[in-house]
Amino acid sequence: MSKAISNRMENLKPSAVREVLKLTADPSFIAFAAGNLSAEFFPVEQLKKLSDSVLETSSLQYSVTEGYEPLREIVALRYGKKYGIGNSDDSVLITAGGQQVINLATQCLVNSGDVVLCENPTFVGALNAFRAYGAKIIGIPTTNEGMCLDALEAALEANDNVKLIYTIPTFQNPNGTTMPVENRKRLLELAKKYDVMILEDSPYFELAFDGEITPTIKSFDTDGYVIFAGSFSKTIAPGIRVGFSIAPKWITSRMTIAKQTQDVHTNGVFMRVVYKYLRDFNVDAHIQQYQQLYAKKSSLMLSLMDELFDKRVSFTRPKGGLFLWCDLPKGYSGTVLANNMLEKKVAIVPGAAFDTEDNINNTGFRLNFSVPTEENIKTGIKLLADGIDEYLK
Amino acid sequence: MSKAISNRMENLKPSAVREVLKLTADPSFIAFAAGNLSAEFFPVEQLKKLSDSVLETSSLQYSVTEGYEPLREIVALRYGKKYGIGNSDDSVLITAGGQQVINLATQCLVNSGDVVLCENPTFVGALNAFRAYGAKIIGIPTTNEGMCLDALEAALEANDNVKLIYTIPTFQNPNGTTMPVENRKRLLELAKKYDVMILEDSPYFELAFDGEITPTIKSFDTDGYVIFAGSFSKTIAPGIRVGFSIAPKWITSRMTIAKQTQDVHTNGVFMRVVYKYLRDFNVDAHIQQYQQLYAKKSSLMLSLMDELFDKRVSFTRPKGGLFLWCDLPKGYSGTVLANNMLEKKVAIVPGAAFDTEDNINNTGFRLNFSVPTEENIKTGIKLLADGIDEYLK
Repeated sequence: MSKAISNRMENLKPSAVREVLKLTADPSFIAFAAGNLSAEFFPVEQLKKLSDSVLETSSLQYSVTEGYEPLREIVALRYGKKYGIGNSDDSVLITAGGQQVINLATQCLVNSGDVVLCENPTFVGALNAFRAYGAKIIGIPTTNEGMCLDALEAALEANDNVKLIYTIPTFQNPNGTTMPVENRKRLLELAKKYDVMILEDSPYFELAFDGEITPTIKSFDTDGYVIFAGSFSKTIAPGIRVGFSIAPKWITSRMTIAKQTQDVHTNGVFMRVVYKYLRDFNVDAHIQQYQQLYAKKSSLMLSLMDELFDKRVSFTRPKGGLFLWCDLPKGYSGTVLANNMLEKKVAIVPGAAFDTEDNINNTGFRLNFSVPTEENIKTGIKLLADGIDEYLK
Repeated sequence: MSKAISNRMENLKPSAVREVLKLTADPSFIAFAAGNLSAEFFPVEQLKKLSDSVLETSSLQYSVTEGYEPLREIVALRYGKKYGIGNSDDSVLITAGGQQVINLATQCLVNSGDVVLCENPTFVGALNAFRAYGAKIIGIPTTNEGMCLDALEAALEANDNVKLIYTIPTFQNPNGTTMPVENRKRLLELAKKYDVMILEDSPYFELAFDGEITPTIKSFDTDGYVIFAGSFSKTIAPGIRVGFSIAPKWITSRMTIAKQTQDVHTNGVFMRVVYKYLRDFNVDAHIQQYQQLYAKKSSLMLSLMDELFDKRVSFTRPKGGLFLWCDLPKGYSGTVLANNMLEKKVAIVPGAAFDTEDNINNTGFRLNFSVPTEENIKTGIKLLADGIDEYLK
């Protein structure tokens, strides 16, 4: 009895991505599995300087759960002014990364048994958060334009207890696709029509290769249907665990109470570091470095895949972000390939890890292009092409 | 429909303590409400130096959810060697403060409708975490020796779905009492007899005025019935949000999966800072400073209360920690007094905030002695004595 795990946690498995990462921490592995940034542009010196300047009794004492006020204000300002995210009915909550926004929104909105609709495949950290609250997850098929909205509407029509539509509309994780603006507007109309909140998870949206940022769904949200989850993990550094939500005040206040029960508040030193970083440094120039680097790396990866991969393997061509997605021909499994590749010391994440169903036969796998060096991309894609040939022959 | 809050969050109110803190952030207030450390011993210069030394790409990158391995090891070593906490069947999880241990343990063990038994009154952050998972909370009366074990046994006998016994056995929050060693052993026997896990929340146990540390319940736990929640909030600084659990491996692995869904991992820079702090500095000498300071402050506070308080007011005499507890005579409410005191710019927390029931007539209130200066203690206790006289007359 004492050893019985709660129902909500019974079916939760460790994130396959994080387990692959542990397996492949060995630096001799070629890391196509990570969701990390390329570390070469981490602003180490600036962060050192800022950390030194903010480390004092006030940053070491307890803070309010909402977050350090100047950071909340500069987040509202930057994302409001630059991207039109948030209006006077919204407020900002500082969180321990974007993951915590997903968790808090689910905790506050989704009863056990309620339905969450999301792209299939999608971010495994979100799937596990939904499962941890007993949500019924229904995956919506995706195309190169992201979530298929006809299928979404059918699911909204068929289920009367949908509490959340979860989407990563820009440079989706894991498949790298982006939802066109007209689809975003239609998605928002559907949310209003069926009176369901949208959780827009956009940690990558600023990482557009050409610097052209697709407007967020939240930027069209005049009626308070969108919770925007943002992150500094992809623009400053993930290890500091600082993210934010911009969402209608009624839900922000509930999420704040929920956050009190999780971690009281986000690390006080790094809330101030991020504030001063946004205030004192040219964050857009910093992001541009990532944009250009990832454009170059993904272009190299894709050209090698064009050249070397078996023609029966299809893949996406992202315009930004960190990931692309490949599909093996029907009847072949990304899980088998990923296991085979461990012997060749190339780490990829099987598509099954992102599947909303327990689907060992998922034909997909995810490749990250932000972490590996150009040299590793060349060697790794060659090894992967060989591995695919061996598996498909 | 879209605006409907989940059932689990419907009855959750913002922590009264944190709301009082917001109200009384005005520095002209005398702060008897906080749960903070006295900031005068924060190791600001050491933390600056350490933060500078660990801020590099590896601390800024994603980490494993379990926590930075050298920190896990040094925690196991320090608390194992010094206090006998944990054995080879246990493992360490690094968390965002002690609060997250409470949250994760509840998430992994307690189904909606299951019973959690705890001291009444108790820490409001724990009560809210239990409520957020739909637990049925049953408060066990406390004496000067902590939780009344006869009442606990009766509750264990009367309820067949008790999943957790939550206790703060040393310098309890809010009432400052300490459970004697023989009671700890009996509590552990009861847990075994009724096969129920104990969550031992001990953020203050090292803050004994005389340096004599009461052995933790966990130190007697040979059969894996205790989840120990520890914190560096009271020994290093709360704003960094670093805590830990030492618990049986089967539950630690589940809590790790749950943590993945909340914040992925704890701040990477400060996991390393705490590691190096424990490794390179004399943490015991640092803690001794707090012990001596709080001994002095609580002694001053108690002597003034002895002198000035209406004799119908009773109060506890803690041997460590941060808090003491007062009770007004029957028929008077701590909530009314706390509101009255706001006019006099003295912040105290009404007992109702810590009550396991919705009990506006709770006669108690909590006083913190670690934060106010000696001068403020003198002025504040005088004002409080006057406020009590006005209320009781």
